[in-house]
Amino acid sequence: MTTACGDAPRNRQYLLAGRPVGPVLPEHFRFHETDVPEPAAGEALVRTLLVSIDPAMRGWMVNRSDYVAPLNIGDVMRATCVARVVCSRRPDLAEGDLVVGGFGWQDYAIAAEPPGFTRVDGALPPSSALSLLGTTGYTAFFGMHEIGAPTAGNTVVVSGAAGAVGSIAGQIAKIDGAARVIGIAGSDEKCRWLQQHCGFDATVNYKTEDVGTRLSALAPDGIDVYFDNVGGEILDLALARLANYARVVLCGGISRSLQTGPIPGPANYFNLVFRRAKMQGFIVLDYAARFPEAAAVLTPWVRSGRLKYAEHVVEGFERLPDALAGIFRGENIGKQMVRIAA
Amino acid sequence: MTTACGDAPRNRQYLLAGRPVGPVLPEHFRFHETDVPEPAAGEALVRTLLVSIDPAMRGWMVNRSDYVAPLNIGDVMRATCVARVVCSRRPDLAEGDLVVGGFGWQDYAIAAEPPGFTRVDGALPPSSALSLLGTTGYTAFFGMHEIGAPTAGNTVVVSGAAGAVGSIAGQIAKIDGAARVIGIAGSDEKCRWLQQHCGFDATVNYKTEDVGTRLSALAPDGIDVYFDNVGGEILDLALARLANYARVVLCGGISRSLQTGPIPGPANYFNLVFRRAKMQGFIVLDYAARFPEAAAVLTPWVRSGRLKYAEHVVEGFERLPDALAGIFRGENIGKQMVRIAA
Repeated sequence: MTTACGDAPRNRQYLLAGRPVGPVLPEHFRFHETDVPEPAAGEALVRTLLVSIDPAMRGWMVNRSDYVAPLNIGDVMRATCVARVVCSRRPDLAEGDLVVGGFGWQDYAIAAEPPGFTRVDGALPPSSALSLLGTTGYTAFFGMHEIGAPTAGNTVVVSGAAGAVGSIAGQIAKIDGAARVIGIAGSDEKCRWLQQHCGFDATVNYKTEDVGTRLSALAPDGIDVYFDNVGGEILDLALARLANYARVVLCGGISRSLQTGPIPGPANYFNLVFRRAKMQGFIVLDYAARFPEAAAVLTPWVRSGRLKYAEHVVEGFERLPDALAGIFRGENIGKQMVRIAA
Repeated sequence: MTTACGDAPRNRQYLLAGRPVGPVLPEHFRFHETDVPEPAAGEALVRTLLVSIDPAMRGWMVNRSDYVAPLNIGDVMRATCVARVVCSRRPDLAEGDLVVGGFGWQDYAIAAEPPGFTRVDGALPPSSALSLLGTTGYTAFFGMHEIGAPTAGNTVVVSGAAGAVGSIAGQIAKIDGAARVIGIAGSDEKCRWLQQHCGFDATVNYKTEDVGTRLSALAPDGIDVYFDNVGGEILDLALARLANYARVVLCGGISRSLQTGPIPGPANYFNLVFRRAKMQGFIVLDYAARFPEAAAVLTPWVRSGRLKYAEHVVEGFERLPDALAGIFRGENIGKQMVRIAA
């Protein structure tokens, strides 16, 4: 096929085909091929290279997350991507430029107006636009700084600690002066990585250890900041062990994603009263105007070696559905993404 | 018997005899008579007139509330009281002076050093030291101002609204400029009182109405501040209806007091994430240094008629146990207290 942009192959897509009740499954997506779109004046055609895979995507699929527009059955699966400009009818974009935007699970997309896309900052490798210098890193940054607010001497616990957000959140707490950062993760490999690579002081393997007993031992004076990515029983165990004036950062509830029936609430919530503590949720998009501020702090931390970020990249367009399912099975260390073009 | 203070009758007491699992029952107390204590140098003997009855007392009985010292089996039941000085060996107290302190469920007690007692302020009737100008009113004041922080136009919901704290908390929100204050209470009489006497804009009788449906109708744009005195299902229904950036003030969980088995947590807690909301507990004693500040605001509000406070007084020492059990049955409108001497 010949377009204004020249010859182009077909555009592969995954469309939303069903809404998960419990785990994300292959049947929730439908493979589709269509023409490559034509950029109008003021638009550019982009080729997606890397696709971000995030737990929040399941919420979009079930339309539970009403902080973003609904995702309808038949829509191209929504995702943030790094893409290269193929041809441009915008003066501010040239062929070969790298941009990041919500281009979705497809080979080709249209970049129209900012903030629909932004240029990839060259300070760190382009993939960082989906990890440290994307909503992932900013979620860790603003969640930890604005809600967790660890101070010198604090004990900080992070669940889902080997995930993209958790691993950064724990390191930020440590840089902020927390006396002890404890990570909860689902394998010995993850725990080793957290301690040896990310500087966590201690870890708990929730699949092989008694989390309550271990937290009591590791945080004998209570937990000052609990950064929660998982919900469920681990949240409850942390609530029971809060220090006075503790802050519980509600970031995610990934354990909820595997459940099909009613999901119990945290029975120990009332300990928030005895401990004069708060539990607070947030949506990182609310901090969009301050993303440059976060990038300006995080980038030098990486360059000076104080902060490590990890990316878990799988290759191939056809692996998109399983890559998403995989993060709910805990298969990734660091940020999960899929490379669909070189 | 003759003491340093002259002839005195025996000292009636209720001692803690058991720890409730579920409702507070008469069998949790043991009636006892003992000698009237002798004040040492620097002490005064006081005769208790009014005893404060508070939901928190159940927590003391079960030793769940570790923000106060343990209450042991055999101890005089702990309570805040207004008392009259019978005889004094302190230069700052004279016979007939009124003091408030933790004198417990007994006729006579020793007032030693402040803050074990404070003088009853004469600005409002002495009973107010146990209601509006006691921890009850201060709980409403600091909980609503420091955590709820309603702003002009906000929709505020208060559960346990006809109770001592709830009725004041709702009025404070209204004075602060809330557009709509909705009270949840357990009888039509209470609901009428809240609307006609306390200026609540709307009420829900949770025993006869569908709370979720009513809240959705009364707060179509969501709840900005939810001041929770009850926990349980009503907390969950409120969590599901929060507005963005809502504040949930965890003040009490009186519905929990009647349960004997495991108490479920709030299944809708994760809505705190989507609504970028917080749920925060507090202990009013943390604000003790600021109680005078609260009194200085609340007293003129009462005098000018902007704020009403109600007291629910029953007469007779022997009614102490049932008065406490009664607040968990929702029998009081406003502050429950027991008068044990004229």
